[in-house]
Amino acid sequence: MGLWLNCGMSLPPWPTLVRPLVRRLEPYVPGEQPKLKGFIKLNTNENPYPPSPKVLAATRAAVDARLRLYPDPTAQALRARLARLHSCRPENFIVGNGSDELLNLAVRALVEPQAGSAASPPGPAGVPARPPSQSVVQYFVPSYSLYPVLAEIQGAARLGLPLKPDFSLPSLNELRRGGHWDFRAALTIITTPNAPSGRGYPTAELEALCRAQQGAVILDEAYADFAREQALALALKYPHVLVARTFSKAYSLCFQRVGYLVGHPDLIAALHKIRDSYNVNGLGQVAALATLDDLPYYRARFRIIIGTRQRLSRQLAELGFQVFPSQANFILARPPRFAAQTWLEMLRRRKILVRWFDLPLVRDCLRMSVGTPAHAAALIAAARKILS
Amino acid sequence: MGLWLNCGMSLPPWPTLVRPLVRRLEPYVPGEQPKLKGFIKLNTNENPYPPSPKVLAATRAAVDARLRLYPDPTAQALRARLARLHSCRPENFIVGNGSDELLNLAVRALVEPQAGSAASPPGPAGVPARPPSQSVVQYFVPSYSLYPVLAEIQGAARLGLPLKPDFSLPSLNELRRGGHWDFRAALTIITTPNAPSGRGYPTAELEALCRAQQGAVILDEAYADFAREQALALALKYPHVLVARTFSKAYSLCFQRVGYLVGHPDLIAALHKIRDSYNVNGLGQVAALATLDDLPYYRARFRIIIGTRQRLSRQLAELGFQVFPSQANFILARPPRFAAQTWLEMLRRRKILVRWFDLPLVRDCLRMSVGTPAHAAALIAAARKILS
Repeated sequence: MGLWLNCGMSLPPWPTLVRPLVRRLEPYVPGEQPKLKGFIKLNTNENPYPPSPKVLAATRAAVDARLRLYPDPTAQALRARLARLHSCRPENFIVGNGSDELLNLAVRALVEPQAGSAASPPGPAGVPARPPSQSVVQYFVPSYSLYPVLAEIQGAARLGLPLKPDFSLPSLNELRRGGHWDFRAALTIITTPNAPSGRGYPTAELEALCRAQQGAVILDEAYADFAREQALALALKYPHVLVARTFSKAYSLCFQRVGYLVGHPDLIAALHKIRDSYNVNGLGQVAALATLDDLPYYRARFRIIIGTRQRLSRQLAELGFQVFPSQANFILARPPRFAAQTWLEMLRRRKILVRWFDLPLVRDCLRMSVGTPAHAAALIAAARKILS
Repeated sequence: MGLWLNCGMSLPPWPTLVRPLVRRLEPYVPGEQPKLKGFIKLNTNENPYPPSPKVLAATRAAVDARLRLYPDPTAQALRARLARLHSCRPENFIVGNGSDELLNLAVRALVEPQAGSAASPPGPAGVPARPPSQSVVQYFVPSYSLYPVLAEIQGAARLGLPLKPDFSLPSLNELRRGGHWDFRAALTIITTPNAPSGRGYPTAELEALCRAQQGAVILDEAYADFAREQALALALKYPHVLVARTFSKAYSLCFQRVGYLVGHPDLIAALHKIRDSYNVNGLGQVAALATLDDLPYYRARFRIIIGTRQRLSRQLAELGFQVFPSQANFILARPPRFAAQTWLEMLRRRKILVRWFDLPLVRDCLRMSVGTPAHAAALIAAARKILS
């Protein structure tokens, strides 16, 4: 028990130590990481297969006296290898402590806090004034619920516009007619394929959206390896477009925290300026490099996961789930008979963790990661029992 | 070569993509991490001894299928172990991706950006207005040159007050008389022992300073394991005091990026709210836990390093260096005959890297990490050659 408990002091004498903005903040809540063994984890979209044996061997071999030294501050070797993979230059990349850090850096580097730490003042007749575009983080809902949290932390305005009911992107005409979309927003973030729906977007549609934006655009491709189309080339074509990728999901390295952004060297350089000097741990860099040297191992598993996804989608539909077509390593589905939150609990009691989001369009749905064929079979068996 | 080179577009059509504050920013420059082998690295204060064999074994043993899973988002096991070590509770801790991340989070959670993105407007007759205390990051110079960079990134005011010429802390009376110190600054950061001088501070002096501050205070104890006194108890006694520690320097885990802050649970909770969910990589958590189970190994090496420091200080003094007394794992000294920057280059040509800072009081000094006895002998031999 700490001395602070005994000294008779508490925060009240310093009531304003913490910024009001932070006191008000509702933090992002990550999916549960169960402490107990025996759960089938289909709640955070991890790859069900381990890293390749070569990656494990390379990482193990690096656990030696070098741990005492600082890692490469710019992840030079990894950026050079990524440049070869994507046919561009190391200057097109910034590597981060997971792509979460990079999204955070992008908001900080590109989006102005709003004047005052409170929200924008109301306009005439109490109508909220439109926030200035330089302070707007814009995205579609539902998508990754971290985006609005990052905007709030920055003191920026968050503008979440609904996707269409089938989770497709509104057309430019629809966005213009709607009158809410901000074509000058400092930062627009689009998850593609979308999470939590799994909907994939044609690159042509994404390109049209990017061309219409005056501010920066991040295409968050965390799940792109499971999709038909990938949009990374747009980050090399347009100087205001960044693409976020991660080694976490598809490459089985969640534990190691390595993600990257691709884009124009000038924009990438701005993010380098504000990142922590040694933001990417050394063993993460080693593991990511070894991963890029063993891509066939991963691609074979992407094909297996996509096959499992198709079978699982069919089986869920047969049980009465309304399954949305997925191009990711998870499936969104509207379960039959009981509420989605009830399903969440009933599956949990059967030691299967899935995810439920309190977000528009998906409150009556579950998001289930595609596991191994055995995980999928267990999920189907549990659903059958619940329904019987 | 990227497509962007071919598409005839460059940033000018979007001149304001990057915030003016970030465009103006001079980033922190970390010490060189040489690509070539054969250098004796005495420039970034790493521990010259490797992690303990038990730490290496535990880390290696964790390189398995678990890498596909997200790490514990709150580093629960590590915080519980730290709570036992420091006789307090897990809620007193936040673990970070190195202590740099935690300093960054503290600035963001506790310090308001200044109104407008520019510096504070001039007062009457062009005299710069005193920035509002809620936007002030305050520290002594010289100290860790990251602090002003973090303030700038936040759009906060940076207030660097000089240490005394022997690097001791000004007394409260001296600070009051000087008229520049801000006793209401939102955040005051004190490096103890100081870097780059190595000067250690009595806890009683630090406590007096803490008691006089209305805002938050961080005592940055990156080098405390090499000092006579440690001030961690102050973080458990005062609700506005945080102590920063790291596994990098003393515990030979720079590569792994693990640091922590100790303090009042309310203040710690504010930082948890704005950190990335999975900010500490899993193998870093494993290595840090194993470290805490093998402290005698490290303490034995602290004694060796302190012994080497004393011998090296004496030998440098014999060669004509003006050596400042150090309580850290490095030595600051004013070299004889040539300018410090010349020495830097001459030592580099002899494959010895040391550090020079363009900061007040230390422009004519070198900072040299205490290596092994063999490193110290090589440094002395090189200095002798340079002087002969």
